[in-house]
Amino acid sequence: MIDLPYLKTICRSTPSKIVMVVVDGLGGLPHTQSTKTELETAHIPNLDKLASVSARGLTNPVMAGVTPGSGPGHMALFGYDPVKYLMGRGILEALGIGLHLDENSIAARGNFCTVNSNGDLIDRRAKRISTHESTPLVRQLNNISLPGVSLSVHMVKDHRFVLVLKGSGFHENVSETDPQSLNTSPLVARSLDLASKNTATSINTFVSKAESLLSNRNNANMILLRGFSKLPNLPKMNVEYKLNPAAIAAYPMYRGLAQLVGMKILETGQTFDEELLTLEKNFNFHDFFFIHYKPADAAGEDGDFNAKVSQLEKFDSHIPRLLDLNPDVLVIAGDHSTPAIMGSHSWHPVPLIIKSALTQGEGNSQFSERSFHDGSIGRIPATHVMMLALANAGKLTKFGP
Amino acid sequence: MIDLPYLKTICRSTPSKIVMVVVDGLGGLPHTQSTKTELETAHIPNLDKLASVSARGLTNPVMAGVTPGSGPGHMALFGYDPVKYLMGRGILEALGIGLHLDENSIAARGNFCTVNSNGDLIDRRAKRISTHESTPLVRQLNNISLPGVSLSVHMVKDHRFVLVLKGSGFHENVSETDPQSLNTSPLVARSLDLASKNTATSINTFVSKAESLLSNRNNANMILLRGFSKLPNLPKMNVEYKLNPAAIAAYPMYRGLAQLVGMKILETGQTFDEELLTLEKNFNFHDFFFIHYKPADAAGEDGDFNAKVSQLEKFDSHIPRLLDLNPDVLVIAGDHSTPAIMGSHSWHPVPLIIKSALTQGEGNSQFSERSFHDGSIGRIPATHVMMLALANAGKLTKFGP
Repeated sequence: MIDLPYLKTICRSTPSKIVMVVVDGLGGLPHTQSTKTELETAHIPNLDKLASVSARGLTNPVMAGVTPGSGPGHMALFGYDPVKYLMGRGILEALGIGLHLDENSIAARGNFCTVNSNGDLIDRRAKRISTHESTPLVRQLNNISLPGVSLSVHMVKDHRFVLVLKGSGFHENVSETDPQSLNTSPLVARSLDLASKNTATSINTFVSKAESLLSNRNNANMILLRGFSKLPNLPKMNVEYKLNPAAIAAYPMYRGLAQLVGMKILETGQTFDEELLTLEKNFNFHDFFFIHYKPADAAGEDGDFNAKVSQLEKFDSHIPRLLDLNPDVLVIAGDHSTPAIMGSHSWHPVPLIIKSALTQGEGNSQFSERSFHDGSIGRIPATHVMMLALANAGKLTKFGP
Repeated sequence: MIDLPYLKTICRSTPSKIVMVVVDGLGGLPHTQSTKTELETAHIPNLDKLASVSARGLTNPVMAGVTPGSGPGHMALFGYDPVKYLMGRGILEALGIGLHLDENSIAARGNFCTVNSNGDLIDRRAKRISTHESTPLVRQLNNISLPGVSLSVHMVKDHRFVLVLKGSGFHENVSETDPQSLNTSPLVARSLDLASKNTATSINTFVSKAESLLSNRNNANMILLRGFSKLPNLPKMNVEYKLNPAAIAAYPMYRGLAQLVGMKILETGQTFDEELLTLEKNFNFHDFFFIHYKPADAAGEDGDFNAKVSQLEKFDSHIPRLLDLNPDVLVIAGDHSTPAIMGSHSWHPVPLIIKSALTQGEGNSQFSERSFHDGSIGRIPATHVMMLALANAGKLTKFGP
């Protein structure tokens, strides 16, 4: 939560409605031939028109030069310092497959790997074996039992799985077993504080049982575990901002993040069309909506410039439906940039617009990275977006006499 | 004071002169019809010309989205973190009517309210009774005596007054008696630490005596007390910045704030004309002047767009007199925006110009919110303005070898 000791004293509940659309991987970089970015290439008349009547700016998800994962990118937009509230890798992976953990569960990101006859790593990802091949292996691991420990193993994709452990007095401060290099054996998990001793012991027992189970295989004959972590205890948006917030996201991980910060998760479908339908149906029942658009990021991660352009154009076609709802404040933001020419997340500032009755526009009519350089919002930390949304919605009273 | 451990080591006293003009409520928002802000609408040729030869930028008084009261807005411009040095409501109200408090005085903002026969609040502001009607009531309250306590009650306006208490070992950590809602009785003041126990007892005795005195009335038959506070012990501008600073302000509250940060208060009149006369007369005797222009804010608070335009034009007409003094550094800033379309303070960034021999201008010739987006100063926290003023005046030496 944004570090304002006085935040609760200035937040007030009002009937006004905020819709925050997060276009995953919104920002991009110019194509080397055309010298235009994905947004500059796309035919996005609705976004262009919307930008012309909105306050415009750019957000820095974490800080200059830092490329955020999806967790930090979203946390920042919700107003949470993404460094202070960094989520463990195990937890994020668990949220990503829709696991419901309780506060005593410890989750780890696991993957199959391959070792030689000396036990040294020769492939940290076991040739990225297919989901089809690893599913029965995960089932075997799930049958491992440890005394006094409740454990479960869950398929993610390809060589990846999630391990969830629960035991009396278990703590999460345990070192990873992945040495991050080849020709060395997987590491023994070590407790990093006294309280985590039992956890480390159980993990090492689990790993050696897994090793036995897989030992007759040539590939994927061992496992690596990373990011032991518990659910973080986060301040809640409903309490801190005095909102009644709801989240609409097709992907489990974003629902999981939203739940951790106190949003109600609305059941929805797999497409943005279905997400919008959910928004329309529930519009009267909440005062803040986070709605997530994934395909732009996926295309960017694939390094497919044209696909990203096309996904931005598809997003554009949905803008009229958003406007028909006439929210008091409409925010269109991104959790980070995903330039197709990089094929990955990046650190570049992300376009932002905020439309409300108090933003009468700045005459500019292109929704793009470059044209937002001179926007009235300027370049702001992404953690400030919520403050501006709340202010524009009349949900912040004066600070100080 | 801006949180620089090395500040004192780089500040140096020089004969150069800084004039900081604070135009209260300077920034605005576009009129819904004309789509022009107050500054864009006003005919302000002197400010436009001055902007064209100055460094331009925008200030954030507290942070994105946060609307400051006058206290935080001014403290920031003087270089003080407005969150760290937040002033109590009682103190600010006392400063506002020109009371001179000592370091042992506790001030509270009081107001008359109305309760029914059960003692439950039915009007927290007693129909905002007139100053005429409440003046004799304040006189009655002022006659209340408490053993071992020196107390006084002072008229502010309408239903509002200030209570000042002084007793041996009195501390300010006492909860407010205003429940902030109706159909419940006023709260008993509670001490929030051991040291404030006697203060709370005296306050409750005062309230019950006040209740008896007012009990025969139908309206304004009870009081509410808020913001118990002592004078804060602030770092002083004369010490920290090595300045010999002076303040010129028609309104008592701004004089009070200036005094708290170590400025000498210069006697002046009720108009900006008279303030300028005071500046001219005293120009040789100080190296820093804070001079306050109030009418723009007042018009904005009234929601009167045309009046604000006209007050900005009046301010513009005084610019030549400021320039005639030829200060080494001229700063024109605002403590916050007060858009007439909102009729209140707002969170929006505030235009800023700094003119010195080291600012040769940026070619732009409109003094307005939008045209300053691309100014060389950029968007800065208002707490940084003093540093730039000092630097332009040659009052900051090199940091580090």
